[in-house]
Amino acid sequence: MTMQLIPYSQLLNFAIQAFEAMGMKPNSAQQAAENLVLADLRGIDSHGVARLSGYVRLWQAGRLNARPKYKLVSDWPAAATLDADGAVGLLSATRAMDYAIAKANVTGTGWVGVNNSNHFGIAATHALRAIPHDCIGWAFTNASPLVAPAGGVERLLGTNPICLVLPRRGAAPIVIDMATTAASNGKLEILQRKHQPSPIGWLQDVDGTSLTDPFSLKDGASLLPLGSDMERSSYKGYALGAMVDLLSGVLTGANFGPWVPPFVAFLAPKEDEPGKGIGHMLGAMKIEAFTDLNSYYSRLETWAVRFKQSRPIDKQSPVLLPGEKEHTAYLDRIMNGIPMMETVIEDLAALSSQLEIPSLN
Amino acid sequence: MTMQLIPYSQLLNFAIQAFEAMGMKPNSAQQAAENLVLADLRGIDSHGVARLSGYVRLWQAGRLNARPKYKLVSDWPAAATLDADGAVGLLSATRAMDYAIAKANVTGTGWVGVNNSNHFGIAATHALRAIPHDCIGWAFTNASPLVAPAGGVERLLGTNPICLVLPRRGAAPIVIDMATTAASNGKLEILQRKHQPSPIGWLQDVDGTSLTDPFSLKDGASLLPLGSDMERSSYKGYALGAMVDLLSGVLTGANFGPWVPPFVAFLAPKEDEPGKGIGHMLGAMKIEAFTDLNSYYSRLETWAVRFKQSRPIDKQSPVLLPGEKEHTAYLDRIMNGIPMMETVIEDLAALSSQLEIPSLN
Repeated sequence: MTMQLIPYSQLLNFAIQAFEAMGMKPNSAQQAAENLVLADLRGIDSHGVARLSGYVRLWQAGRLNARPKYKLVSDWPAAATLDADGAVGLLSATRAMDYAIAKANVTGTGWVGVNNSNHFGIAATHALRAIPHDCIGWAFTNASPLVAPAGGVERLLGTNPICLVLPRRGAAPIVIDMATTAASNGKLEILQRKHQPSPIGWLQDVDGTSLTDPFSLKDGASLLPLGSDMERSSYKGYALGAMVDLLSGVLTGANFGPWVPPFVAFLAPKEDEPGKGIGHMLGAMKIEAFTDLNSYYSRLETWAVRFKQSRPIDKQSPVLLPGEKEHTAYLDRIMNGIPMMETVIEDLAALSSQLEIPSLN
Repeated sequence: MTMQLIPYSQLLNFAIQAFEAMGMKPNSAQQAAENLVLADLRGIDSHGVARLSGYVRLWQAGRLNARPKYKLVSDWPAAATLDADGAVGLLSATRAMDYAIAKANVTGTGWVGVNNSNHFGIAATHALRAIPHDCIGWAFTNASPLVAPAGGVERLLGTNPICLVLPRRGAAPIVIDMATTAASNGKLEILQRKHQPSPIGWLQDVDGTSLTDPFSLKDGASLLPLGSDMERSSYKGYALGAMVDLLSGVLTGANFGPWVPPFVAFLAPKEDEPGKGIGHMLGAMKIEAFTDLNSYYSRLETWAVRFKQSRPIDKQSPVLLPGEKEHTAYLDRIMNGIPMMETVIEDLAALSSQLEIPSLN
């Protein structure tokens, strides 16, 4: 696989121009681009600029509004719901998160749901906004149905991530940001490129039989919930995916379950949609509202040191804190550039001609 | 295995008298007993009266306070932390949940942490208090360390449950209440009684090798996080267990990680405890603060019907909603009595002599 190192600023500028070409205002394009490219910086390549052309196609299909009029449909001191008017989730979830933080600063916690939205990138990009405010951040989103419930064969849930971030002092935050499936789409894509089989427990076919063909998702196979099979509690992964769907979709008034509109523009949304667009749920908890701030930071260091220094199975592979791997990627990539596959670079070159914006290099 | 059917009222009265014998006031004993026996009603036998003698031994060891003086150590409009003064979690978590609901009724959401507490039974018993208030309920607790982090061999986390409940109209609530491990202790106990091996992916020995001996936990083996192995994303189960520990322990000022005091009285708490007792986190979200209540109930029915009627792998085993199995047990047991093992009945008989309370039958 040929890889090319692209400096962060170059990738960011390209994304800004692409979003501006879609009609976003400069500030919005800047914010959307920063949120998108944070995925590339953190090593979540599947959710970064590799998706840029997907957002463009959604916009071309009239399914993404570059100039939305946001509207609060409910507003309580510690809770609200935002109708995003078809905005990209990259922006609507950031707006909702900032509103949740503002509420948490006053009441102690703030939760803001979003409906009528679109794909929001990596969950952590939004939750991490809580960190400078000494808040704990939460982010959930539902997504296009690819996952079968435990014991079922229909694709009823998305990879529906759960994200929780906690600030540390003088160290990278704890970042939990995980699809509620045994394997993410991004991991399947890696095996597709290498033409290698996927492990047992990631996929099942339309009859519920285990599969190891990483291309089978295109033929109607399903991703399996975290746990993989009943014996190892896949009903728990199903329950977690349902949790995210209920909070992001059912509670906010967005679509849910099999009705969540597909990210790919060549698949049309279902005609009997019970809600509006895709849904998110963002939350903030003010640490001082629960405990003395210094004591919290000191306890968290005790926690982090204990886990990091605990005895590993393999001496070469120390136990990692949640988010540690992504932070290591971030430090490397912000300094040295982002390794990108030729196919993605070609995709961005095509985008540059199509949108009439300067090319990446 | 010999089983005996015990009527609910009989079991409840026995538990009330046991708690009163420990010195609880009548109202508290009633509440603690109702919370405990709800586990038996819902079919979670490992967390019901089978644990009663465990609570008594903790009390005898001076580690459970039957007449606690609760104290709020922080109190914001939508957040608070309660010092439970060594109370049993069966009571402190209920108190915290009711306070969270009261906050949610005013501000839209309410989150109340608890430190200096003890085992709280099943998480759902507390979260379900949200249901009559048209609130969504959350409950987390940390627990004695039995679980290794992904890639590690030390027991650093408890089975740390995640619980979310959502009200439905004219139907049992959605109840997600799950240990963040591949298998719960309760499931291991079933195999112990049958002298059957446990599946691969539930346990590992002190060197990180997979084990199938359900008795091995007593020799230092660890439970594995949900996901079971790295290939099937056990680091996600680890992250979920960490999430619960960070919210319940680090944020509240309770103990956390390997310092969570053991439930069994014959094991002493560690001497360098960084916090107080066991910790919980309870949350309530007022549905009206996010969306129109009738629309929510209607959307949730659409969701529930779609999942229930989806195509199962095996026609004899329909896809279940989270909590459906436990509700079926509840309906049966509240009418017909609770099937109890002879060993548990003998345990309660011993308790009756010891506490000088009337026997069960």
